[in-house]
Amino acid sequence: MANSNSPDGGGSGARNTFNDETPSVRHRVALPPKEGLLKEFKSVVQETFFHDAPLRDFKDQTPSKKVLLGIQAVFPIVGWARNYNLRKLRGDVISGLTIASLCIPQDIGYAKLANLDPKYGLYSSFVPPLIYAAMGSSRDIAIGPVAVVSLLLGTLCQAVIDPVDHPAEYLRLAFTATFFAGIFEAGLGFLRLGFLIDFLSHAAVVGFMGGAAITISLQQLKGFLGIKTKKFTKKTDIVSVMRSVFTEAHHGWNWQTIVIGSSFLTFLLVAKFIGKRHRKLFWVPAIAPLISVIVSTFFVFITRADKDGVQIVKHIDQGINPISAHKIYFSGKYLTDGIRIGGIAGMVALTEAVAIARTFAAMKDYQIDGNKEMIALGSMNVVGSLTSCYITTGSFSRSAVNYMAGCQTTVSNIVMSIVVALTLLFITPLFKYTPNAILAAIIISAVLGLIDIDAAVLIWKIDKLDFLACMGAFFGVVFISVEIGLLISVVISFAKILLQVTRPRTTVLGKLPGTNVYRNTLQYPEATKIPGILIIRVDSAIYFSNSNYVRERALRWLREEQEKNKEAGMPKVKFVIIEMSPVTDIDTSGIHSLEELLKSLEKQDIQLILANPGPIVTQKLHASKFADEIKEENIFLCVGDAVAVCAPKLAEQLA
Amino acid sequence: MANSNSPDGGGSGARNTFNDETPSVRHRVALPPKEGLLKEFKSVVQETFFHDAPLRDFKDQTPSKKVLLGIQAVFPIVGWARNYNLRKLRGDVISGLTIASLCIPQDIGYAKLANLDPKYGLYSSFVPPLIYAAMGSSRDIAIGPVAVVSLLLGTLCQAVIDPVDHPAEYLRLAFTATFFAGIFEAGLGFLRLGFLIDFLSHAAVVGFMGGAAITISLQQLKGFLGIKTKKFTKKTDIVSVMRSVFTEAHHGWNWQTIVIGSSFLTFLLVAKFIGKRHRKLFWVPAIAPLISVIVSTFFVFITRADKDGVQIVKHIDQGINPISAHKIYFSGKYLTDGIRIGGIAGMVALTEAVAIARTFAAMKDYQIDGNKEMIALGSMNVVGSLTSCYITTGSFSRSAVNYMAGCQTTVSNIVMSIVVALTLLFITPLFKYTPNAILAAIIISAVLGLIDIDAAVLIWKIDKLDFLACMGAFFGVVFISVEIGLLISVVISFAKILLQVTRPRTTVLGKLPGTNVYRNTLQYPEATKIPGILIIRVDSAIYFSNSNYVRERALRWLREEQEKNKEAGMPKVKFVIIEMSPVTDIDTSGIHSLEELLKSLEKQDIQLILANPGPIVTQKLHASKFADEIKEENIFLCVGDAVAVCAPKLAEQLA
Repeated sequence: MANSNSPDGGGSGARNTFNDETPSVRHRVALPPKEGLLKEFKSVVQETFFHDAPLRDFKDQTPSKKVLLGIQAVFPIVGWARNYNLRKLRGDVISGLTIASLCIPQDIGYAKLANLDPKYGLYSSFVPPLIYAAMGSSRDIAIGPVAVVSLLLGTLCQAVIDPVDHPAEYLRLAFTATFFAGIFEAGLGFLRLGFLIDFLSHAAVVGFMGGAAITISLQQLKGFLGIKTKKFTKKTDIVSVMRSVFTEAHHGWNWQTIVIGSSFLTFLLVAKFIGKRHRKLFWVPAIAPLISVIVSTFFVFITRADKDGVQIVKHIDQGINPISAHKIYFSGKYLTDGIRIGGIAGMVALTEAVAIARTFAAMKDYQIDGNKEMIALGSMNVVGSLTSCYITTGSFSRSAVNYMAGCQTTVSNIVMSIVVALTLLFITPLFKYTPNAILAAIIISAVLGLIDIDAAVLIWKIDKLDFLACMGAFFGVVFISVEIGLLISVVISFAKILLQVTRPRTTVLGKLPGTNVYRNTLQYPEATKIPGILIIRVDSAIYFSNSNYVRERALRWLREEQEKNKEAGMPKVKFVIIEMSPVTDIDTSGIHSLEELLKSLEKQDIQLILANPGPIVTQKLHASKFADEIKEENIFLCVGDAVAVCAPKLAEQLA
Repeated sequence: MANSNSPDGGGSGARNTFNDETPSVRHRVALPPKEGLLKEFKSVVQETFFHDAPLRDFKDQTPSKKVLLGIQAVFPIVGWARNYNLRKLRGDVISGLTIASLCIPQDIGYAKLANLDPKYGLYSSFVPPLIYAAMGSSRDIAIGPVAVVSLLLGTLCQAVIDPVDHPAEYLRLAFTATFFAGIFEAGLGFLRLGFLIDFLSHAAVVGFMGGAAITISLQQLKGFLGIKTKKFTKKTDIVSVMRSVFTEAHHGWNWQTIVIGSSFLTFLLVAKFIGKRHRKLFWVPAIAPLISVIVSTFFVFITRADKDGVQIVKHIDQGINPISAHKIYFSGKYLTDGIRIGGIAGMVALTEAVAIARTFAAMKDYQIDGNKEMIALGSMNVVGSLTSCYITTGSFSRSAVNYMAGCQTTVSNIVMSIVVALTLLFITPLFKYTPNAILAAIIISAVLGLIDIDAAVLIWKIDKLDFLACMGAFFGVVFISVEIGLLISVVISFAKILLQVTRPRTTVLGKLPGTNVYRNTLQYPEATKIPGILIIRVDSAIYFSNSNYVRERALRWLREEQEKNKEAGMPKVKFVIIEMSPVTDIDTSGIHSLEELLKSLEKQDIQLILANPGPIVTQKLHASKFADEIKEENIFLCVGDAVAVCAPKLAEQLA
């Protein structure tokens, strides 16, 4: 351990050569206090599952207070309800009404993406938001069906059961998937495995969402162009859809439908543009869909355009959610399908909701507990599946409107939920003449916001590999299918992690002139190498997945350096210093690799030196006896110390 | 960029406060020269696939020399054959004869593990070693069938086809699996994906091998005890096997068999012990198996013990390998099974061979190109599958004997191969009376060496999580099945990588007294924190998989520090310095997290400061405009510089 009292002559002699920068006090590489096995295990478990110290508030409290805190942990509403006041209520009511006006037309449209009757979209905006309001901790998220998850659910379910031929079974499968999506989400949160959703990379999500937006818009073409045939493709890839659209052209697109659809789409896009330009006018795009629905419905009702081939909604059942618990498949051949679909759709729903919750929490600077949030989202889907709802999550567009309309708490979700319930009870018959083309226009204008070109450009600028992941997911969704696109994004995300782990960076360091600081010679061209000494920094823990690479790479750096020195007539390298600061951990394979490196270097008459091993590494170097093999005096506190000892030895050898 | 000419007053004023240790020359954080997209891409590809610079030797050579080098790259034998001499030949002949005497009885036994006739074991020791001798680059590896791969092939194949009821189809499936194992191995090498085998961790392999040794030994109980029934279980787990063994006890174990088996097993183990004690007597355990076979065969022939129920080999066909190319399933229902089994068994075979090649290469200090090695191993299995061989790889026990017997080149494999061929041509009829119990004893004594208790102890000492992986694989194999054990080892290996990536370590740094060096306060208790400044080091690249964790963990360190300060009546933290040295890379999610951290800290009136970002990170901080958000003067070359600037600012604020 670079002991300054070491009996080794070279080391002691060298002490006088330390320059001003590493002054008289020479520190040893400390072996940290040995922790017990239990303590070590506890610390790993804590960092993995409880890094946010969720029980921190419970410390040093009376039992009754602890119970209250426990209830509050599950139902945050208990916590903030006591501080609720009229000012907050005003904000919540305004925002709740705004998102309600936005969600009603969207719900009807999104239900179609899931191959379900429009009423199920409305049902899903009634019960789940109430559950979330009690259990959720995000103040800004707006709960309900969303486009991407609806599409995903629809695609996955129709691959198992045909929704037209077997509507009852299809519906049961959708509820089953919803139930298991909820179980899955709550389970992840309960087991504190929430970090798993971090494995879906931001870049892949951007690509996937963009692709899904294109796919969803393509799906709307049928309604938008008034194509009536039943032979329209069920595939979602762009090639199949466009072929279907154009082979149906001779059957006749319906021009009235196109006129209605286009004019209202234009109106919606203009409203969107206005809202973007003037943040104060955020309510214009928020209520534009409802206005479109009202105006167009009235127009069709007056002109009876439905008799000219303009397709209309026709009928939405009146009344709130019926119980659907008995419809869930808890056995039989569709059970596994339900679990699988629920798992996939639940994961996507979760990713979206947590991303939204985190974004707005950062904007308003409050904390979101990801795991608790998952329990809330899971519970709302489980309860939803028992009350005729399909998978819901946080909607990005509605959450943004909610935020801008001044929501204060989850009460805005309650307000929205009440409005939806009233709609279901009293207003649904009025939707009879609503043209389908309007719903298509509303969906198109909503999902276009998911295509985030700025984010893609930023990803391109920052990381080309990330961009590849982004584009892979995008084109996978657009040209193949939603599942394949999702699969591509997951695979690329994992491949990137694995690449990072197998091929850590190694750098040659040089000394910055006039300091005792050693830096990457590529980044700091003024950093100079010290003749006869090669300093390599390894930028990762050394594990089985990269130990061979690290050893081989170090030997390659050495070979290249020796060749350069030979050409330049410089002295041969006699010391290889491995700067270990970034090496946070090492396993048996890593130790083994170091041993092999030591042997290889010894055969070439080169001394291996370690600088600044961290606490865990130091411990393991000693546990494995590698510290004895390399000898303790060859382990230093920092590169500067190591160089100070090597330089005079080198001078001796040359002399 | 911490510009020393910065107009910012604090920065300029602070320059005078730098102490001796970071002297007058103040360096800026350099933005490395921007690389073109193509160059960056090239460098990633190079490090991932060609980190060993395989084409290095081809540089600056004449075309004819390049052709020669190319041939030599595929067939290393062309390279060293010219320097071959009588002295080397002597070593190779001796070691070749030694491993031949060891492999012949083993081959006959291992073929039974794969549910194949004994002759296929011998066939597999004839052709593949010849191919390897021409193409392989390890000088010490001994090629042939090995116990674990034989067992794995046998277990996987019998799950598809019953080897007793359909021996012809079973044999074809085994050849098909062998063919695809070869294609798979050579393919990995050809595509330079050799690093994939690094994902099987050392710990998992130790556990898997130990478990496989137990399982193989259990399989030998049937032969060892002379159990004749056909109802003996086909499962490999310890519970099923032991139940089978004892339910058959009343049918009678064969005492003659047990006597023969036990006495020779004792003889083999004693020979092994002698070989271990006296390294010079390594040949004792090496030839003990052959002696056992000769003696026991002669004994049975004299006493006709086979008439008393001692089971014997009975018959081995005479003649060398017949062609089997027409037997491989290139279509039909068994094709996919063959590909799957080949893939799994090939991966295990590859792991074993590469580990052996690397171990002995490190001992003799020569280089092994893992990818080229895989091409050689794959080619030998493809050719093997066409000539009635099943999957072969490097045998650890025989390679060790080969090494100790003084092998010089792969010629020892050629010698072994010739001896096996001669055996097949002339001697096989003599094996007729060889008792099966001897083969069982030979296999048991061979595989016991795979149980590496020392390695397991070392793993326990170094890394508890690795030990868990090791035990998981071990018990999975012993109590469930070989495939499940393998699956457990792969899953645990991956889980460990993912854990490493999601939960990087973060450390609070303090200043070592009398120096300007900042180190982990847990490892160096003497390192002192600077009041009002919190220094956190993040020990990993910041990627999507850990960006949220890093941000939340940093905020938790801050919260804990503030609480401590409050209790101790110390000043509040006003500066958070993130030491970025180990942060080798950052992606969009990481940048996003830094932005959120910056915002959170600003709300608490705390300044975020970055110290020593690496070249790639610096580039990305600028590309993403985060450098502007945090302001360039808050990015420093090292922690010392940052503290030197913060300290006077802090004093001003307190005053």
